Amino acid sequence: MAADIDEQPAGYERLLTAEHADAIARVAAAVAERRPRHVVFTARGTSDHAALYAAYLTEIRLGLPAGLASPSAITVFGARPDLSDALVVGVSQSGGSPDLAEVLRVARASGALTLAVTNNPDSPLVETAELSVDVAAGHERAVAATKTYTAELLALLMLVEGVRAGDGVLPADERAALARLPELAARTLADDTPARLAPRYRFAAQLVTTGRGYAYPTAREAALKLMETSYLPALAFSGADLLHGPLAMTDPDVPVLAVVGSGPGGTSMREVLPRLGERRADVVVVGSADVGETRMAVPEVDERYAPLLDILPLQRLALALALTRGEDPDAPRGLKKVTTTM
Amino acid sequence: MAADIDEQPAGYERLLTAEHADAIARVAAAVAERRPRHVVFTARGTSDHAALYAAYLTEIRLGLPAGLASPSAITVFGARPDLSDALVVGVSQSGGSPDLAEVLRVARASGALTLAVTNNPDSPLVETAELSVDVAAGHERAVAATKTYTAELLALLMLVEGVRAGDGVLPADERAALARLPELAARTLADDTPARLAPRYRFAAQLVTTGRGYAYPTAREAALKLMETSYLPALAFSGADLLHGPLAMTDPDVPVLAVVGSGPGGTSMREVLPRLGERRADVVVVGSADVGETRMAVPEVDERYAPLLDILPLQRLALALALTRGEDPDAPRGLKKVTTTM
Repeated sequence: MAADIDEQPAGYERLLTAEHADAIARVAAAVAERRPRHVVFTARGTSDHAALYAAYLTEIRLGLPAGLASPSAITVFGARPDLSDALVVGVSQSGGSPDLAEVLRVARASGALTLAVTNNPDSPLVETAELSVDVAAGHERAVAATKTYTAELLALLMLVEGVRAGDGVLPADERAALARLPELAARTLADDTPARLAPRYRFAAQLVTTGRGYAYPTAREAALKLMETSYLPALAFSGADLLHGPLAMTDPDVPVLAVVGSGPGGTSMREVLPRLGERRADVVVVGSADVGETRMAVPEVDERYAPLLDILPLQRLALALALTRGEDPDAPRGLKKVTTTM
Repeated sequence: MAADIDEQPAGYERLLTAEHADAIARVAAAVAERRPRHVVFTARGTSDHAALYAAYLTEIRLGLPAGLASPSAITVFGARPDLSDALVVGVSQSGGSPDLAEVLRVARASGALTLAVTNNPDSPLVETAELSVDVAAGHERAVAATKTYTAELLALLMLVEGVRAGDGVLPADERAALARLPELAARTLADDTPARLAPRYRFAAQLVTTGRGYAYPTAREAALKLMETSYLPALAFSGADLLHGPLAMTDPDVPVLAVVGSGPGGTSMREVLPRLGERRADVVVVGSADVGETRMAVPEVDERYAPLLDILPLQRLALALALTRGEDPDAPRGLKKVTTTM
């Protein structure tokens, strides 16, 4: 898991090379040409969080309604929604989950434009979809996905920005901003704060993660990593939803990891922090916002890019905490690398 | 909270009277006439779970793509998605949350058909929307929503089935099935199993809820009730997602509430139970499926109606557990009845 985590800057670099960037640009141009009226993402587990990020991007950057489809409506209950106006995107590290392939098959039969985003170009999901993007993260050794997650994030970002450009080719300022990511990711990973913070959670019985907008998928993914590797029940809430009920649960015994960036999402999260303060929660802030007593600082970038950096210290925290708690993060109990559900 | 819970059979009965059923039928006919191409729900907290139920109904019963919109894309990040093909439904007990009203205002400006489903006909959400449905649950005294949740479920079910009928008028067999719900709900509430089971969770440090398809919103809502009233960290997963990671967390110390009905969703959940068994989780089954050693049994109905019954013993469990743990379920710490977020 440590090796997978460390490979992420190189993964960003690889995906930004002409070979992969051009392939994504061609797919983006094909999507733009078909002018879908809305976008439906389907994914599970870690990839679901990458899909959630892409749904925010789609709504904000493309002005297209976007949603996450539950496969079970189609695979279990036999729903046959008319998706002829839609782009339907399956996101899966392995491309091997039969339920996602079935959703794409049904969508394609109903006239949808279908796209598979995977780390395996020879997978059933890729065979089923009309278009595909290879996130090119290389073989992932650990069961808990890390480098495939961030590769999915970057590939989906490049794809959405390519669709926005129309011809798939990213504008020069976007390319320049993306080109900085490998170095910023390496700098983020060089910071030893996560390992120093891990003992704080040695005896935690549960944990809350929270973020808004682009940072909400980060909160969700951090919670999943902590559950997978440290068996720590971690509850993820959007900053707004946290105020609608679960806030009652937060007290001095409940640690909160709050993802707070520098853009509009971060600004709105700053309103949530005092409410957590009233409840005397133990808050650690992750991200570029200079708030809070205890922080895992991340270099400041446009909020749109922040999920590609903010998750890095959280992955390292999950790894360090698993080791601190005497668990083996490379072999989480009860899990398999490829999960097949229908 | 106990009084609110007990009023639910009467709430079903009220919503099924000609006065309310006809009002919903008129709205359903208006929706059917406009032939939306897809449906976007927006809601928070408990109402988000009612919206999730309605999204499943929309996909399965209407064959229309349905998704849940995150308000923050619009309210925080300024997204202006083109919703001219969409029906956009705001679901809110109070109708008072400014972010939902803003989503409906933006949607209406972009040409969407907008609908407010609330328990308050004089609310900002109703003023903003073109159409509205009053769930007529009466004043809810407790902060933790119970009777407004089930009233939202039934109103949304009547609405979707009315749209399916085309003219808003439910077919006779549907009306007959719905007419049985008040009595079935009363019978479910008369069962004392939840109070007997509450001590089992007296010292639980966390809890997992799970269900698939129509039962997944029930799992989510049960988790929220347990968090709001007993401050018990409760994690809700779809049965499929549970196998994609969080399964590692379940061990003999983690109690699992599994919602298992008698239809296709229940059948697919039966595959999850042995996996929980391998992990020696402490499983209590909620619903009509005759599986598991420990059950909160609920009368068998079509899986589509099961959420209107399955949540009842779970609400009672949350209430009983709060009392067992010495908490005041009528005044959860840190919460307000109407939460305003942007």
